[in-house]
Amino acid sequence: MPVGTQASVKGLTPEQLKRVGVQKVLANTYHLALRPGSELVADMGGLHGFMGWDGPILTDSGGFQVFSLAQLRRMSEDSVVFKSHLDGSLFELSPERAMRIQEQLGADCIMCLDECPPADVPHEKVLAAVDLTTRWARRCRDSHQRSDQALFGIVQGATFPDLRERSARALLELDFPGYAVGGLSVGESPEQMYATLDVTVPFLPADRPRYLMGVGRPEDLLEAVCRGIDLFDCVMPTRNGRNALAFTSQGKVRLRNESLKRDSSPLDPECECPTCQQFSRAYLRHLFAAKEMLGPILVSWHNIAFYQRLLRDLRTAIREDRAAEFRASQLARWGGDS
Amino acid sequence: MPVGTQASVKGLTPEQLKRVGVQKVLANTYHLALRPGSELVADMGGLHGFMGWDGPILTDSGGFQVFSLAQLRRMSEDSVVFKSHLDGSLFELSPERAMRIQEQLGADCIMCLDECPPADVPHEKVLAAVDLTTRWARRCRDSHQRSDQALFGIVQGATFPDLRERSARALLELDFPGYAVGGLSVGESPEQMYATLDVTVPFLPADRPRYLMGVGRPEDLLEAVCRGIDLFDCVMPTRNGRNALAFTSQGKVRLRNESLKRDSSPLDPECECPTCQQFSRAYLRHLFAAKEMLGPILVSWHNIAFYQRLLRDLRTAIREDRAAEFRASQLARWGGDS
Repeated sequence: MPVGTQASVKGLTPEQLKRVGVQKVLANTYHLALRPGSELVADMGGLHGFMGWDGPILTDSGGFQVFSLAQLRRMSEDSVVFKSHLDGSLFELSPERAMRIQEQLGADCIMCLDECPPADVPHEKVLAAVDLTTRWARRCRDSHQRSDQALFGIVQGATFPDLRERSARALLELDFPGYAVGGLSVGESPEQMYATLDVTVPFLPADRPRYLMGVGRPEDLLEAVCRGIDLFDCVMPTRNGRNALAFTSQGKVRLRNESLKRDSSPLDPECECPTCQQFSRAYLRHLFAAKEMLGPILVSWHNIAFYQRLLRDLRTAIREDRAAEFRASQLARWGGDS
Repeated sequence: MPVGTQASVKGLTPEQLKRVGVQKVLANTYHLALRPGSELVADMGGLHGFMGWDGPILTDSGGFQVFSLAQLRRMSEDSVVFKSHLDGSLFELSPERAMRIQEQLGADCIMCLDECPPADVPHEKVLAAVDLTTRWARRCRDSHQRSDQALFGIVQGATFPDLRERSARALLELDFPGYAVGGLSVGESPEQMYATLDVTVPFLPADRPRYLMGVGRPEDLLEAVCRGIDLFDCVMPTRNGRNALAFTSQGKVRLRNESLKRDSSPLDPECECPTCQQFSRAYLRHLFAAKEMLGPILVSWHNIAFYQRLLRDLRTAIREDRAAEFRASQLARWGGDS
């Protein structure tokens, strides 16, 4: 899922997203609750109508941003109170309020409110966060009313195998239609992330979607899918695109690089996206050098197409029982650069 | 012609331009000569190949920017020497060099180098600029070599009727395939501009394109077409679009306006562009409030569509012999606001 933080995948229209194979987008409850407000979005037809996206949408609970972006004011069993990063106003988020906001936003998949401790927090604090997340998950489930939305539980537990198991087992009893793995990509190494997936995903039912939140690099997606993950969201395709960094079948390409100045070849010769079909590396480099908006737009578009194609090819490989070979061949092609 | 200063109409792909009826785009010789350089553009297939636009392109001569943007260092019969606004390097532009650069850029229509005095310059100085522009036009014509490019002469003379006539008569002797009216929209009033067109256009042959450079507002286009102008370029649709100002069939709409917060109607109910078909005013307002790139993109796109539709409807009105009525009805609808 490309990320449309504020109900817009930066620089791209819904049509442009569909054209490169995007199926589902993510929007951020925290940002939208602060601006323009979930009631306004509801009045404007919900997120689908508001942003002109008629495919599936997933919203997060806002918890991650509360714990990373906002200034925390009070944390209790009942709720978390924080100061908006926009205007300093106080805002309270409880499990019940997270449900009401997400019902107003109207996404197809919504997330339980969870407590997300930062990396390198000691075991006893993560244990407390896991148990609070479980109690909040129950309150979310009990207060969620829209039957046309799938509410996912979020497994926490940092990199502690026993806490991941504890979290997963407790959530399974609440019987959610999908499960997310949260609290990764917050500072731990890729190896720690993969090891944590190894001890977490096996507890999650294979007949329900398994979603790794906020991940990640192309190689992370390959590794995570091979460990049983189905669904991802990440700002990397668009954020890197805006910063002139492209993912290609041959590894990363930096479009501010002087060496591309007269490179008339496409950004990625194996890519069928409009950027690669219609423009040269030299032109893309010129757009970034000249600070033209079209540079970030075209490279974001390509990067999203790259991610979509990677996962499409991986799905094919899975059906043909050669996922591990596919992973190995991709990693070898990208080299140490990706 | 939407303006693609640096070989990109800001924020929009060639496909998006074509979709709303754009036939021809303008690119700026001054900017492209400085970055990425006309030789590089030539090596990359010329402007058409470089920017992925397979329709007609017009380049200006660079003269206007030299006299407005750059720091002028020396002006002589032979050439003008200026300091680049990008890196302070010295650059010389002569009629012959303006031709060589525009041949390298490879546009379909190219412009003679002219001297553009600012508004409120006295008669004797404008007279000198007119005569220099004529001598430079001859040198341009004599040095221009590509038979697949149409070289336009540029009528100068500020708001002095005698100088406009003098300039037009002198250029007509050089027999250009098209003529531009330059030196307007540089600070004079709309009434002065229209009066100048009244005393200039009648000298220009009706069987050759007549191009009013750098103009303008929708009402200026209506007034100028009714005075015989065929071709325009202006940054207003895109620059205003980036600044949240939309042209609509009911006049201007400012998309930062609080009153649009819950306005679920399209930006312009009579417009068939993708922005108006797919998004609400409330969403566009949100995009600008949230500083999302998609706001400038979508409103630029609409504004270009508005200009294209206005001129399409005006062409129909001309064929049906009701151009004056069309002009009056449009001006009445836009009210004092446009």
